Amino acid sequence: MIRRQLQEASRLLREAKSVVLASHLNPDGDTLGCVLALQAALEGLGKRVVTLSSDGVPEIYRFLPGSVKVLSCTEQRGFDVAVVCDTGMPERIGKARDAVFSARVVIDIDHHVTEGAFGDVRIQQPKAAATAEIVYRLFKVMDVPITPAIATCLLTGIITDTGLYRYMNVSPATFRLSATLMEAGASPSEIAEEVFESRSFASVKLLGRAIEHIQSEDGGRLVWSYISYNDFQELCATDEDTEGIITQLRAVRGSVVLALLREVKPGRVRVSVRSRDERIDMARLAEKFGGGGHRLAAGFWVEGGIEEAKQQVIEALREWMHCSTSTSQRA
Amino acid sequence: MIRRQLQEASRLLREAKSVVLASHLNPDGDTLGCVLALQAALEGLGKRVVTLSSDGVPEIYRFLPGSVKVLSCTEQRGFDVAVVCDTGMPERIGKARDAVFSARVVIDIDHHVTEGAFGDVRIQQPKAAATAEIVYRLFKVMDVPITPAIATCLLTGIITDTGLYRYMNVSPATFRLSATLMEAGASPSEIAEEVFESRSFASVKLLGRAIEHIQSEDGGRLVWSYISYNDFQELCATDEDTEGIITQLRAVRGSVVLALLREVKPGRVRVSVRSRDERIDMARLAEKFGGGGHRLAAGFWVEGGIEEAKQQVIEALREWMHCSTSTSQRA
Repeated sequence: MIRRQLQEASRLLREAKSVVLASHLNPDGDTLGCVLALQAALEGLGKRVVTLSSDGVPEIYRFLPGSVKVLSCTEQRGFDVAVVCDTGMPERIGKARDAVFSARVVIDIDHHVTEGAFGDVRIQQPKAAATAEIVYRLFKVMDVPITPAIATCLLTGIITDTGLYRYMNVSPATFRLSATLMEAGASPSEIAEEVFESRSFASVKLLGRAIEHIQSEDGGRLVWSYISYNDFQELCATDEDTEGIITQLRAVRGSVVLALLREVKPGRVRVSVRSRDERIDMARLAEKFGGGGHRLAAGFWVEGGIEEAKQQVIEALREWMHCSTSTSQRA
Repeated sequence: MIRRQLQEASRLLREAKSVVLASHLNPDGDTLGCVLALQAALEGLGKRVVTLSSDGVPEIYRFLPGSVKVLSCTEQRGFDVAVVCDTGMPERIGKARDAVFSARVVIDIDHHVTEGAFGDVRIQQPKAAATAEIVYRLFKVMDVPITPAIATCLLTGIITDTGLYRYMNVSPATFRLSATLMEAGASPSEIAEEVFESRSFASVKLLGRAIEHIQSEDGGRLVWSYISYNDFQELCATDEDTEGIITQLRAVRGSVVLALLREVKPGRVRVSVRSRDERIDMARLAEKFGGGGHRLAAGFWVEGGIEEAKQQVIEALREWMHCSTSTSQRA
């Protein structure tokens, strides 16, 4: 279904002299893997390429080939083509927006379903486990050789967006593409080590602290934890060190909704929420708090100390779980 | 290279009327996945099958189809064929030994390299990521249909023995077989949820406790932790709840050797050790303490309280790391 868009994007990129690439805010392995794979491919074709990530490159993704070239913003304008990877929301590309929208043509490649997606060429494929799967298809249409660097970037996108092949988005095609990328020079064990086994000592200690604080409510269906500003200070840790903690909370048998509250600054609490039940829509809950996200994974901020935030958020979650499941039973 | 052995095993199993299957002690997802896949296949061919696991079936593997039929021992003797999966050491099958060695023919299927492996037919393929990969090949030779139950058992073997595709044993063939098994009805997300996301609350709390106790030595190369008898009692946890904790210690950046000490009974400490450096042979260290295992993963017992054990084991590890790396530099 997306063959025509892939061909159009291929033609535009082949003809372009200058290209700007943009990842989304709070970048993950898929958005960075995609822009860096494109960077390698387009530089290989002799294009002038600027790669933007408004929030920079988190330490665990600095092993990605070409990541040193990523800029947080640029004054340059008037690129022939802009490519945005892994989001359909222009506000999610942050400061990169001006450079992107000054380009003559904007291509958006994404595996999320977003209403009102932007871009002159929109390549959306919700069935893909990662945007990296779609970028691979684009390279096939463009007849770009899959170098070891490109293979590593794309496999990183797949590995991180499937949580090491554990999420429901994995398909036989995901496994087959992983085999192909391995043959092209990517190493799943090296990627997994960089992304999942390179935690700082502080970050591991912080994980222990979060697990120590773990609480279970509603007969074990709601599992949550918190990290106070004191915990961050005591363990010399930052919010970047909290990456992956919420995945650990998932490990509790019978958990349906997960929440992690962290007082990143005194009186300012960041809340991440996850659901394993399609009926309990986390994006809609997050919107009530001025945040956003996906149905099964969302986030928002709460003003106030950690104790206030705990009370407010857990109460809201309990009510939301109750309403969501009883409403849909009536429906 | 193993085609001849596979054909021989296929012929023996097709001709047999009764078969006994045996997993190894302290069974994991690969050994159980293999015997249960064989159980389903052979029952499908009308054979009388008895499946043995001397240490039973741990709770996280009870979702495996047919696991309710697994016995810890049997008085029956004189089976036509015995199949042992995932170990080359007869002592590793425990109480199942007598039934296995009373069979007319013993087949051993394994992806480990073991000196003096046993069995009349030995199917060893060290390149396979899991014994499940070899069992799949046997089914192809036998022309056994891959039912959803068989696919689930085999994919569980692959997923657990590769730590969700993160270990170095993963090959393109591992990914391609995973795709095939998915198409045959296995679900990687369901398997991962059962195996990795079904921890009891006690077990998650215990993980938090272990992480809280984490220590780093030798510039971060040696990372270790412990669980005291008091911790077990306080959290109402058992040794089964410690499953997977050592994998969490791996997450510390720069760690080379990992150790987890747990005082399972007062005055009796079980030690698990892991190495990421081929030169630091954990099996040989474990042997010094009367234990055993593989080069990169081994275990042993220490008599005494947790404090004594800590001192004794960490000192031995420090010395072993030092000697192993300096010896091989000279070699």
